[in-house]
Amino acid sequence: MANENKQLIIIGGVAAGMKAAAKARRESPTINITVITEEQYISYASCGMPYFIGDVIKDSKKLILREPSYFKNMHNIDVLIRHQATTIDTKDRQVSVKNLENGQDLAFRYDKLIIATGAQPIILPLPGISLENVFTLRTIGNAIRIKTLVDSGKVKNAVIVGGGLIGLEIAENLVQRSIKVTVVELLDQILPPLDRDMALLVQKHLIAKGVEVITSDGVKSFEGNVNNTVSKVITGKRQLQADMVILSIGVRPNTKLAQDAGIEIGTMHAIKVNERMETNIPDIYAIGDCAESIHLVTGRPVWIALGSTAAKMGRIAAINATGGYDTFKGVTGTMIVKVFDLNVGKVGLSEREALKEGFKTESTIVPAGDISHYYPGARDIIIKLIADTATKKVLGAQIIGEGNVDKRIDIIATALTFGATVDQVSKLDLAYAPPYAMAMDAIIVAANVLTNKLSGKTDGILPQKVIDKLDKGENFILLDVRTEMEYMSGRIKGCIHIPLDKLSSRINELDNTTEIITYCRAGLRAAQAYRILKNAGLKNVKYMDGSIMAWPSELEK
Amino acid sequence: MANENKQLIIIGGVAAGMKAAAKARRESPTINITVITEEQYISYASCGMPYFIGDVIKDSKKLILREPSYFKNMHNIDVLIRHQATTIDTKDRQVSVKNLENGQDLAFRYDKLIIATGAQPIILPLPGISLENVFTLRTIGNAIRIKTLVDSGKVKNAVIVGGGLIGLEIAENLVQRSIKVTVVELLDQILPPLDRDMALLVQKHLIAKGVEVITSDGVKSFEGNVNNTVSKVITGKRQLQADMVILSIGVRPNTKLAQDAGIEIGTMHAIKVNERMETNIPDIYAIGDCAESIHLVTGRPVWIALGSTAAKMGRIAAINATGGYDTFKGVTGTMIVKVFDLNVGKVGLSEREALKEGFKTESTIVPAGDISHYYPGARDIIIKLIADTATKKVLGAQIIGEGNVDKRIDIIATALTFGATVDQVSKLDLAYAPPYAMAMDAIIVAANVLTNKLSGKTDGILPQKVIDKLDKGENFILLDVRTEMEYMSGRIKGCIHIPLDKLSSRINELDNTTEIITYCRAGLRAAQAYRILKNAGLKNVKYMDGSIMAWPSELEK
Repeated sequence: MANENKQLIIIGGVAAGMKAAAKARRESPTINITVITEEQYISYASCGMPYFIGDVIKDSKKLILREPSYFKNMHNIDVLIRHQATTIDTKDRQVSVKNLENGQDLAFRYDKLIIATGAQPIILPLPGISLENVFTLRTIGNAIRIKTLVDSGKVKNAVIVGGGLIGLEIAENLVQRSIKVTVVELLDQILPPLDRDMALLVQKHLIAKGVEVITSDGVKSFEGNVNNTVSKVITGKRQLQADMVILSIGVRPNTKLAQDAGIEIGTMHAIKVNERMETNIPDIYAIGDCAESIHLVTGRPVWIALGSTAAKMGRIAAINATGGYDTFKGVTGTMIVKVFDLNVGKVGLSEREALKEGFKTESTIVPAGDISHYYPGARDIIIKLIADTATKKVLGAQIIGEGNVDKRIDIIATALTFGATVDQVSKLDLAYAPPYAMAMDAIIVAANVLTNKLSGKTDGILPQKVIDKLDKGENFILLDVRTEMEYMSGRIKGCIHIPLDKLSSRINELDNTTEIITYCRAGLRAAQAYRILKNAGLKNVKYMDGSIMAWPSELEK
Repeated sequence: MANENKQLIIIGGVAAGMKAAAKARRESPTINITVITEEQYISYASCGMPYFIGDVIKDSKKLILREPSYFKNMHNIDVLIRHQATTIDTKDRQVSVKNLENGQDLAFRYDKLIIATGAQPIILPLPGISLENVFTLRTIGNAIRIKTLVDSGKVKNAVIVGGGLIGLEIAENLVQRSIKVTVVELLDQILPPLDRDMALLVQKHLIAKGVEVITSDGVKSFEGNVNNTVSKVITGKRQLQADMVILSIGVRPNTKLAQDAGIEIGTMHAIKVNERMETNIPDIYAIGDCAESIHLVTGRPVWIALGSTAAKMGRIAAINATGGYDTFKGVTGTMIVKVFDLNVGKVGLSEREALKEGFKTESTIVPAGDISHYYPGARDIIIKLIADTATKKVLGAQIIGEGNVDKRIDIIATALTFGATVDQVSKLDLAYAPPYAMAMDAIIVAANVLTNKLSGKTDGILPQKVIDKLDKGENFILLDVRTEMEYMSGRIKGCIHIPLDKLSSRINELDNTTEIITYCRAGLRAAQAYRILKNAGLKNVKYMDGSIMAWPSELEK
């Protein structure tokens, strides 16, 4: 057999590495497989760690999917834990390894080498960073340390540095443990992959759940008490009490080993690979969080560290390294995160990213029910759908809400993979029955609205643009067309109120020389009002997409 | 304006008709729109009616989305309820209408005509069919009558004739009302759109929920008591007690009006339309349950009556009838139904349908968790994925389980729309976080398994084919590789038991001249056992896809 006496060395033993090892064995019963990892644990579900801290997952063992002995006994795969790969000699095809337990130096010859060294948390060299109870969350060991501290009851106040996905997952789980949580984010919004308008809606929810959210402020230093334990976080603008700090400002790919061996690093600072997961050095592959990928929307390199991508890359590298042929075309930038009662998802490009990539965009924000409104349990979701005005192709979507979000994200992820236009999305034959969806699914409604905007049939304006106009002090009429009761319950400051069913008869109350922007609860009646005004001959009319449901600012009561 | 003084007549006022009316008004403020419907109610959610009977939806008003007055006041659309369109004169462009309340004959000239006459339940002329308490469920009126009868407490036993989607929805809702329910189906399986193997798993669940399911038996007549009320259902093989009967053997398109006017009927016996929803007669469109569509997998006409398709067709006909341009390419045969705790979905072709269409198929059945197994609330789903061996394209999927099914159906529906291969599905960048999915989503796992089968890497056999072999008395070894405890809890009769971790050392116990089929709980260990045996040099080995989880028959205990 082709692989007999061949050596496959895999560096890294979490998602990508162990997936590659298991798949390589299925592909080849004879190849020798050795996994080398610095860590104590292998094959663990790092994505579950925030929920372990939150006690949603009670036992850390649940996160460890497999032990080294399982791989040895079931698959004849050697796993060397606590062994650090120190250098790769690409000429002699050899990896130097240090046994971290006894300091012994070892060397492994390879025929094929798969690098799955993952990523590590970014740690800034701030004063006080080494104080006790300042953590990152990347390894099982740290997860256990954090949970033990939380279990001790000593943590009243926690500060999370960084408002990204992991930071917010940790925030939720610490609140579940009755800890007062403050999130500090340097940028002017949390969840940087999202557009600001959508991120602000998530921020509203966090605040409603008792999380203090500080944006546009950076941590400068940490102060400790006499026990050398953190007690305070000093930011550019404030001082925050903290019995525990979790740094969650992002991760960076572990590329040093590869780079030192002359393996090419890509523009995104991760290891550059082709679609077979091959690096520039023959017989060396890179997979998982240390490797780059291609963004299927832009066609350009991207680095997104996700377990789902790691698993796919692992399989493909294993197939290629054992003599087969398989390819990975890239990713659609799909992500999902639970933030308390909200499901928050994104796929493709945000509008900000799309503009940066040089696209001319049109977008809409559409609130809708996730299932038939008359069926119990229906919940709202809010969809932002973004298209390229030139090709009418979908560029991306962001969806948030208590309703089913991941399903719609996956529909758009699939559509993006095939370069779907907004029109094609609007005509997808999606599953319909009252317990599952509306006859016109929220995604289809959003695509219809965006089609109308793209074709110039309607003239919607996003809430954020209305806020910009208000901030600039522009002169326009903000027309609330909701019922009296809705109006009284909270309205945008400075609006005029004419209920939709009175609008036709009261058009003359409006100054038709001034721009009018209509709004309602979710945008539907605003669009109807827009048409009434247009049909009555008013020229300068717009309606607000998503209206109050997508309004990120405070309402006047 | 182009549409000024133009008359748009729409025949039919439920999903398609009212969607067309509303959209036509948005497209044209000036066109005159008249909707003609025989019924009392318009714009109602007929798909919600089973849940109204089950008291899941308490108030029938919740199902009636809009009143005629709303359309008049808000959209200047005339809706004539209880008016029957009797003839269409395509030469003089005129529709003859009878007022069903006062018998008056009217005539309406049209410039554009949209036919949305829907479908009606098939009623067989069986003896006793006119007895009291023998119902069909298609109109709000009947839904109210059925619920009133159920509310009276007089129904102890109900017989549902027909085991299709609606029949099963009604069965569930009557069981919720503490009624003993029997479903009688003429075919040898319930849910005819599904393959028999998947339908049998649903049937198992129905039986577990207390529903009596009779297949391969047809209703011959109904018998009544002295009050002319149904009391018994006589089938080919049995007599069933029945205080109520619901006929649910299917619907057929209402095409008589169109046919009499010379409008072409298609091969599926519904009105033939092109992608603009135009019939063969100029300026006459047909939409919704009375119209045909194209199946995007076969490229051939199909007739599937669904509210989701009706809504899309309504929009498109409205755009075209008001001078715009829009097209509907077709459907992917997507369906979903809740059957007690099971979510049951199908998209594309079943394997039986695919074979009938001339495809050579490969398929797999893969059980998997719907979310990360370590996150609370994870539930199983079972996926049957079917591909064309020639092109490696996905032809269809059937998914059942307590876990999230509709999401995966929609992913495949989207993939089918773009002619995706199994390989492309296996590499979709689907949303991953522990509360939502596994790192390798169930759909991706199923696609990987099917890719292996398509490429000849593995040799899985579906449970139904194992049953066929058993039925034929073929000589083969059925090898159970589960743990002792699993084996004791229930096994397939006649199997040999060797736990997976003992298999390597006990291979010599197996007769290597006989075909061996391995099985476990869900197929994963069966596949591992298959590889162990193959690697040991055994030639005639298969593993059972889905194994016990997909096994439709009884287990031996």
